[in-house]
Amino acid sequence: MTANIQNFRTIWLKPDDPSIVQIIDQTKLPHEYVVRDLSNYREGAQAIREMLVRGAPLIGATAAWSLYLAAIEGSETEDPVSFVKQAAIELGETRPTAVNLRWALDRVLGVIRQSGENRDLVSLLRSEAQSICDEDVEISWNIGVHGCALLEEIAEEKSGEVVNVLTHCNAGALATINWGTATAPIYVARQRGIDVHVWVDETRPRNQGSQLTCWELARNGVPHTLIVDNAGGHLMQRGQVDICITGTDRTTRTGDVANKIGTYLKALAAHDNAIPFYVALPSTSIDWTIQDGMTEIPIEERDTHEVSHVRGMHGNDVREVKTVADGSAIRNYAFDVTPARLITGLITECGICEPSEEGLARLFPDFAKRAS
Amino acid sequence: MTANIQNFRTIWLKPDDPSIVQIIDQTKLPHEYVVRDLSNYREGAQAIREMLVRGAPLIGATAAWSLYLAAIEGSETEDPVSFVKQAAIELGETRPTAVNLRWALDRVLGVIRQSGENRDLVSLLRSEAQSICDEDVEISWNIGVHGCALLEEIAEEKSGEVVNVLTHCNAGALATINWGTATAPIYVARQRGIDVHVWVDETRPRNQGSQLTCWELARNGVPHTLIVDNAGGHLMQRGQVDICITGTDRTTRTGDVANKIGTYLKALAAHDNAIPFYVALPSTSIDWTIQDGMTEIPIEERDTHEVSHVRGMHGNDVREVKTVADGSAIRNYAFDVTPARLITGLITECGICEPSEEGLARLFPDFAKRAS
Repeated sequence: MTANIQNFRTIWLKPDDPSIVQIIDQTKLPHEYVVRDLSNYREGAQAIREMLVRGAPLIGATAAWSLYLAAIEGSETEDPVSFVKQAAIELGETRPTAVNLRWALDRVLGVIRQSGENRDLVSLLRSEAQSICDEDVEISWNIGVHGCALLEEIAEEKSGEVVNVLTHCNAGALATINWGTATAPIYVARQRGIDVHVWVDETRPRNQGSQLTCWELARNGVPHTLIVDNAGGHLMQRGQVDICITGTDRTTRTGDVANKIGTYLKALAAHDNAIPFYVALPSTSIDWTIQDGMTEIPIEERDTHEVSHVRGMHGNDVREVKTVADGSAIRNYAFDVTPARLITGLITECGICEPSEEGLARLFPDFAKRAS
Repeated sequence: MTANIQNFRTIWLKPDDPSIVQIIDQTKLPHEYVVRDLSNYREGAQAIREMLVRGAPLIGATAAWSLYLAAIEGSETEDPVSFVKQAAIELGETRPTAVNLRWALDRVLGVIRQSGENRDLVSLLRSEAQSICDEDVEISWNIGVHGCALLEEIAEEKSGEVVNVLTHCNAGALATINWGTATAPIYVARQRGIDVHVWVDETRPRNQGSQLTCWELARNGVPHTLIVDNAGGHLMQRGQVDICITGTDRTTRTGDVANKIGTYLKALAAHDNAIPFYVALPSTSIDWTIQDGMTEIPIEERDTHEVSHVRGMHGNDVREVKTVADGSAIRNYAFDVTPARLITGLITECGICEPSEEGLARLFPDFAKRAS
């Protein structure tokens, strides 16, 4: 299955009914491709909480579209703005770690504040959600262009031999509106004829690697190989990884990165084997208010069902099996923090920088000034 | 479910028919407890190859019992010794990484060589296989006693607060004849009233952590918590791990350790967080002939089915589901090598030593002399 990635979107208005937002139910991939209708903001919140949509940029976009749905519903109340604000509070509580959620909600609320009394709230929020999505596509594309330069350099050093990229979780097109963050350099490199192969970490417990990254790389004809999360260190020791690129759910202004649980282990292995470890991110995932990733980023703990149960195909049916016997406690931490010292660079839409206060301030002087 | 660990065995002669060896089919745990008959050495080889038995010491013991079965079958041929030798060749090819397999086969063949023409081959090999098992139980117990001292020390430092041990894969009673290697210090500590809690890595792809280690710890009443393989680094960063103890399939005479894929990543995290990382092993897993783990230990690649399919309970039935869509390549490396520099110490039946040529030579001067 290959497709035209240019036209791919993860969230959109229903073509024949713009009071409904549509998403791909990512909990069903790769076994079923199911499009879900979101008819009100509560369904949007539920989609974020239950991870029908996931990935920091897509969570933000879904929150923005959910406020648009709240504006429609609120237009039948006495105080539509209060209705939207209440929806924003509920949406803000769906996931604790990704900072884009907060960012998208604040952006939409800011637009409402700045607009006059006579504005059409529904059109205003529709246009804002659409802008967030369109800008995200452009951001991802630019991350791709900047990151591609790294892959080009490695391809040259290897005299055109295949460039092996290792990635963890899904920071792909499915985590954004299109192109992805960690995958964007890969898609751009493929378009420019660079020979790239991707090692895909399975990414337990939710298997976003085997179920989402494999799906989208296969769909777009990118050569890739699935491995268990335990295997990346071994491959790095044996010279089979040229570069690691992951996404991030929140980056501190000092360059610490909170990302899917297990990212820290891969960063350690890359460091131990002198392999460049890059994190790709839209500047919207930078939390300018915090300095220390280890103490200031809340780490989400999710339902232990994600660890004890695995979903897959049994014959022609999708089935869930329980892998653990009763009688064992389970903990399910969703993210870990990779300290800046283990990261080679941050690939953003504005260029690549060192993971440090100075590096980020160079690329984003206005934000950095406001934060300090 | 708690039981008397003293009486536990992973392999034994069938009580009413000593021409049959019995094992627990570990591929069925924890969902089903199935005892399998091994009626000839080919069934023994198959049990090793298909991992009905696994764990370096138990693989060795199963190989020894399989030669006993070959002696029975061979007694009806013209040249029983040749029959047994041929069986040893086939058994030696079942798994490439664990050195105990080679060790056990060599030991049994050596006993045959040293015995006179008039020996009863069947009784000789029965008695040798039994000795290997009895010695292994004693070895594991002694590993437990030496390792327990480390846990006692931590308990004292923490003024009796619970000691958190992290382990990877199953180096438990199920990997040996009883007590285990990595788990032996834990079982001994429990008997001595030390408050121990174990973080159990799930251990993809075969889930030996969630399916075997959890099963045996629950069975023996040891408090434990299952986590995905990705989570250990996060726990170490947050001070929730006091010590790591793993097993090993092969240890070089310089202290490099080949163990279940992913061990290296945990050793890196322990090192980064100044947490002691110990490897528990019977001296039979030391390969005195090799010096460099990275270049000299063959790393087994296993069937990709182990990665793509997961077994568990669906209602009251055991089912296997396929988690990956077609169209993705898969690689399945079974082991990785943890360099000695990341290991705090080796816990053996003769005491604890530094993971180095000098450290091992101090504990095992005869072997070291012969190797050099």
